[in-house]
Amino acid sequence: MSLNQLGIVKRNVVRADRAAVAKLSRFTSATIHEAMGRVGLLKPYLRPIYVGAQACGTAVTVLLQPGDNWMMHVAAEQLQPGDIVVAACTTENEDGFFGDLLATSFRARGAVGLVIDGGVRDVKDLTEMNFPVWSRAIHGKGTIKATLGSVNIPVVCAGALVNPGDVVLADIDGVVVVPAAIAQQVADAAEAREANEGEKRARLASGVLGLDMYNMRGPLEKAGLKYVD
Amino acid sequence: MSLNQLGIVKRNVVRADRAAVAKLSRFTSATIHEAMGRVGLLKPYLRPIYVGAQACGTAVTVLLQPGDNWMMHVAAEQLQPGDIVVAACTTENEDGFFGDLLATSFRARGAVGLVIDGGVRDVKDLTEMNFPVWSRAIHGKGTIKATLGSVNIPVVCAGALVNPGDVVLADIDGVVVVPAAIAQQVADAAEAREANEGEKRARLASGVLGLDMYNMRGPLEKAGLKYVD
Amino acid sequence: MSLNQLGIVKRNVVRADRAAVAKLSRFTSATIHEAMGRVGLLKPYLRPIYVGAQACGTAVTVLLQPGDNWMMHVAAEQLQPGDIVVAACTTENEDGFFGDLLATSFRARGAVGLVIDGGVRDVKDLTEMNFPVWSRAIHGKGTIKATLGSVNIPVVCAGALVNPGDVVLADIDGVVVVPAAIAQQVADAAEAREANEGEKRARLASGVLGLDMYNMRGPLEKAGLKYVD
Amino acid sequence: MSLNQLGIVKRNVVRADRAAVAKLSRFTSATIHEAMGRVGLLKPYLRPIYVGAQACGTAVTVLLQPGDNWMMHVAAEQLQPGDIVVAACTTENEDGFFGDLLATSFRARGAVGLVIDGGVRDVKDLTEMNFPVWSRAIHGKGTIKATLGSVNIPVVCAGALVNPGDVVLADIDGVVVVPAAIAQQVADAAEAREANEGEKRARLASGVLGLDMYNMRGPLEKAGLKYVD
Amino acid sequence: MSLNQLGIVKRNVVRADRAAVAKLSRFTSATIHEAMGRVGLLKPYLRPIYVGAQACGTAVTVLLQPGDNWMMHVAAEQLQPGDIVVAACTTENEDGFFGDLLATSFRARGAVGLVIDGGVRDVKDLTEMNFPVWSRAIHGKGTIKATLGSVNIPVVCAGALVNPGDVVLADIDGVVVVPAAIAQQVADAAEAREANEGEKRARLASGVLGLDMYNMRGPLEKAGLKYVD
Amino acid sequence: MSLNQLGIVKRNVVRADRAAVAKLSRFTSATIHEAMGRVGLLKPYLRPIYVGAQACGTAVTVLLQPGDNWMMHVAAEQLQPGDIVVAACTTENEDGFFGDLLATSFRARGAVGLVIDGGVRDVKDLTEMNFPVWSRAIHGKGTIKATLGSVNIPVVCAGALVNPGDVVLADIDGVVVVPAAIAQQVADAAEAREANEGEKRARLASGVLGLDMYNMRGPLEKAGLKYVD
Repeated sequence: MSLNQLGIVKRNVVRADRAAVAKLSRFTSATIHEAMGRVGLLKPYLRPIYVGAQACGTAVTVLLQPGDNWMMHVAAEQLQPGDIVVAACTTENEDGFFGDLLATSFRARGAVGLVIDGGVRDVKDLTEMNFPVWSRAIHGKGTIKATLGSVNIPVVCAGALVNPGDVVLADIDGVVVVPAAIAQQVADAAEAREANEGEKRARLASGVLGLDMYNMRGPLEKAGLKYVD
Repeated sequence: MSLNQLGIVKRNVVRADRAAVAKLSRFTSATIHEAMGRVGLLKPYLRPIYVGAQACGTAVTVLLQPGDNWMMHVAAEQLQPGDIVVAACTTENEDGFFGDLLATSFRARGAVGLVIDGGVRDVKDLTEMNFPVWSRAIHGKGTIKATLGSVNIPVVCAGALVNPGDVVLADIDGVVVVPAAIAQQVADAAEAREANEGEKRARLASGVLGLDMYNMRGPLEKAGLKYVD
Repeated sequence: MSLNQLGIVKRNVVRADRAAVAKLSRFTSATIHEAMGRVGLLKPYLRPIYVGAQACGTAVTVLLQPGDNWMMHVAAEQLQPGDIVVAACTTENEDGFFGDLLATSFRARGAVGLVIDGGVRDVKDLTEMNFPVWSRAIHGKGTIKATLGSVNIPVVCAGALVNPGDVVLADIDGVVVVPAAIAQQVADAAEAREANEGEKRARLASGVLGLDMYNMRGPLEKAGLKYVD
Repeated sequence: MSLNQLGIVKRNVVRADRAAVAKLSRFTSATIHEAMGRVGLLKPYLRPIYVGAQACGTAVTVLLQPGDNWMMHVAAEQLQPGDIVVAACTTENEDGFFGDLLATSFRARGAVGLVIDGGVRDVKDLTEMNFPVWSRAIHGKGTIKATLGSVNIPVVCAGALVNPGDVVLADIDGVVVVPAAIAQQVADAAEAREANEGEKRARLASGVLGLDMYNMRGPLEKAGLKYVD
Repeated sequence: MSLNQLGIVKRNVVRADRAAVAKLSRFTSATIHEAMGRVGLLKPYLRPIYVGAQACGTAVTVLLQPGDNWMMHVAAEQLQPGDIVVAACTTENEDGFFGDLLATSFRARGAVGLVIDGGVRDVKDLTEMNFPVWSRAIHGKGTIKATLGSVNIPVVCAGALVNPGDVVLADIDGVVVVPAAIAQQVADAAEAREANEGEKRARLASGVLGLDMYNMRGPLEKAGLKYVD
Repeated sequence: MSLNQLGIVKRNVVRADRAAVAKLSRFTSATIHEAMGRVGLLKPYLRPIYVGAQACGTAVTVLLQPGDNWMMHVAAEQLQPGDIVVAACTTENEDGFFGDLLATSFRARGAVGLVIDGGVRDVKDLTEMNFPVWSRAIHGKGTIKATLGSVNIPVVCAGALVNPGDVVLADIDGVVVVPAAIAQQVADAAEAREANEGEKRARLASGVLGLDMYNMRGPLEKAGLKYVD
């Protein structure tokens, strides 16, 4: 499958290991991005449609055409329990590609959420269903079903490459993608990173300064920082 | 009255039929826009100032000058119970044209909400009053009262033409305008559209695919969609 | 200290009078900006990270470099109880300069909040801590600690000049800065301005029009306003 | 014809008087907008694709669907010499709806230019052809021909209502629309407005101040302006 | 090499076939994108810094950190004659990563241009050198050399995936990327596409309508288009 | 004079030393910003209205109200030969505050250009006059003369603090402000910075790499850069 090829549905997707997905789901998008070496985030214009939205799953990818959500229906059939749909568009478009009927269908197939570089509607219903969506817009504008895109090809969504089967975690801080091949390794790195956060937090809460805890005074002085009165 | 004419207040406005307004108020902006043939939405940069905001009424229109809310006071006098104020501006401006005092006055006159292609302030008070506003910005910046605009002329607000007396419905998905003359017809179409949504939802919830429910497999194949492994 | 000078930390800051800060904290940003003669607001793209965020304090200023939050740690040491951190950046950047660990440190030093012309992360934790932040973005993107900025120099933050020690008040309507030297005078003006708001509100609620309450009919007629049927 | 109705082509359009169009073509968009009472401009995000672009004609309007330029071909047939095409879209979309082949066809039919609330491509060819276009984007992205819009219905383009037959003038300062019914009257007002510009310019060039030429000193003093040293 | 991996320079890049690059350089970005099936374009916010800029080459990719152009110097060493540099950034940043000194170095190594999802400066010099750049901003803001990015890894630049060695063509309509493996095939398709453009242009110029030339009347009627008077 | 105080005109402005201004005028905005330690630039959304625009002068500052250019006329009287007008606005507004008549007046008073955080019109005339303007928009929208701002107070323009009398230099790369007190020192630093640019350029042109010329190989290795095949 090459990027952005149109008119293709890939059925057999190698999904990231379930245990790795489960472990990753315990961390925030910020922590996971740090654990990957500060990469993997989608652009911050993607925002959750309600407070408290949270999702972590394996990506089923969709490439949409502007004003056309035909491929969302094609994607529904490819969903397996634990999947999260990641929808890109061939151009910038904020139409309402997704609403409560599609959410009902996606949920029936086991999907845990949607990340879409486009618009979404029926937000009241989606909120009541507790079906989490991260989108670039909320827009009532309807779409047609006329032009082919693709399902389960690599897509660029909000500035990040997402391959089908990758782990995608989304929360209030944003959306991060973890390549399936390194999911376990990133989960372990995230765990290690969090391990001593509690201790750091306690020390900072007690009034210890980061300047001292991280030994920054020397480097700051060397860089030329001057204190004046 | 011609579009954008300045210095005019039209007193006699033919408002959409009350029964039609009442019927329209049962649907969402997305449904109404579909019922009109996928037109009528204002641009999605207009957002409600609090979660749960909802309003449907007959439009009293206002054309504002940048940084000047004089015409809002003129509009207050033209309000009748069930009206919603739709405020446009002669240029792009995000100043806080509207706050809790004007909201108190508008409510006293029977207004059910405000849609403004500009900024709004006193959002905490407006939320406590449960006075719904859809705006392009929240901004504390005050305005003056020095230059004439107009009231109850046709205005272009957030990309849509709104005539005084038209039905304007706003919810979390956005804002839609229905010309007064077709309000009843659109309400009926919206009702028809929703009639079989429940059944569709139930079928999708049971796992039936949109591909089958909407008979999409043939058209997709004809369009050239390829399934690969 | 000159504006934007790099590599400087000023230790002795003359903070606005505590009583004036306390008095200012009773008003909204919109009211304070009006009391100053309609100036002092930061740009409205700064938004609170959770509903109900509210803060008023004396500014400790930070000038950040893009993608680098080193100076936040330097700032922590300069914090005194009642301070609010105001962070500008030498260029436009939405990285997540601030999260729950820094918030823990800032709070331990007595800070009441953060205003940042950049991004913030760990929003779930910050919300649970009730640590209020006004930012231009929510973004999980991490930062490094490599380049000097400054602390407690005058900075331009979201279009407004903020000097260390100035009063900064932030709420749902936005962020306003009051120069330390005029804090008491502005607090008094805000109080005077609010004194008769209650009466105005009552009159408007009873149906009196602003047109009459503010004597606008004459000036409107003089300006040429025409009423038509 | 109502605004935004889909699937309609109106053949008989009452175009503005040719003499009025010719007279209007002598002025700039800024002058015409002033002559109309400071209204009529489209939003400034529409920009000419090359330096020196200039056009004035009678509007043939097009309502496009996102990513679809089918209606441009339908519009070509409705063109008469002296027309300018004004294309709106049912949603925000920057695809390249128009290029050199359509320009060749439009020119063959007598069109003098295009104003489009969307994208355009083949800009090098269009420049060499000297076919002027005002657009919101330059984008190579191609479009399909699948969904109906309309031709010669009223459209909202870049924030302004344009009726078929209206006069549209575009230059480096932007795009202005003059309703057909008042074209002559606006042309006369523009002429009157320009009549004494030459004299004003000469006086200002000689060093006379606007403060004196426009008698502003009294009003400024009355408004409270203070001169300090 | 995986996407966005930091701290890596890949030396051996398989560049697209020179003959294919040469052939592709005869077409516009719009034509090539059509020849690929309407994919491959970078986002239209990338604009050339001067009129007439044109470039086609094999990509040397760079992943930058915000405010840091260290990797540009690392990239210079990897350049071969006929290469075009494609620079992405780990976050959105418009600093001036590139100016006339780097351009001098790049040209000395044989580079034919730069595509950068960031800012550029020394535009006057670059124009005089006739060194073409497509950027998202022109900004004098300088950068540091402190943090590792990578060279010749796959990058997402302005919404498109670019692999080192891919063909990148940029002109006034935008920037398109052609995977190295299909360069020849796309060049052939572009040639075929252009073959009958001359004839089409001649027919349209003679007044033949696209409606007839493309046989659209039937499909339009079937879709329900109505002509009214 | 305090920042943003309204209703004030300061007559006696201490302008930067003429010799320093003359010397600064030999450098680009990028070079001057580097010579100041990478600070002093206005935001890059300010763009010149024509290719080749260039200006360097002492600032006469103006604080405008939205949609109101009254203070521009007040500013004209305060102009001295060699001044450049720097206009800020109390809120974001893109109206056409400035056109050819004001330019004629400004030039008659000796002004060398305008930097405005707002819109400008009559661009064709301004280009023919060779009167350089840097603005955030080109917009035909006219303004009124009704509300007081100020002249020659400190203003924040496009994110930078500008004091009357400061040196402002603008070119194709942007706009930079140099405080009057350090104008000579910055001019000297700019000169020193440029002194060895010619030699550097020659070495880079001969094929020497920045990696070697700047001794970057060691630091890159230390930072962990890996070369792979």
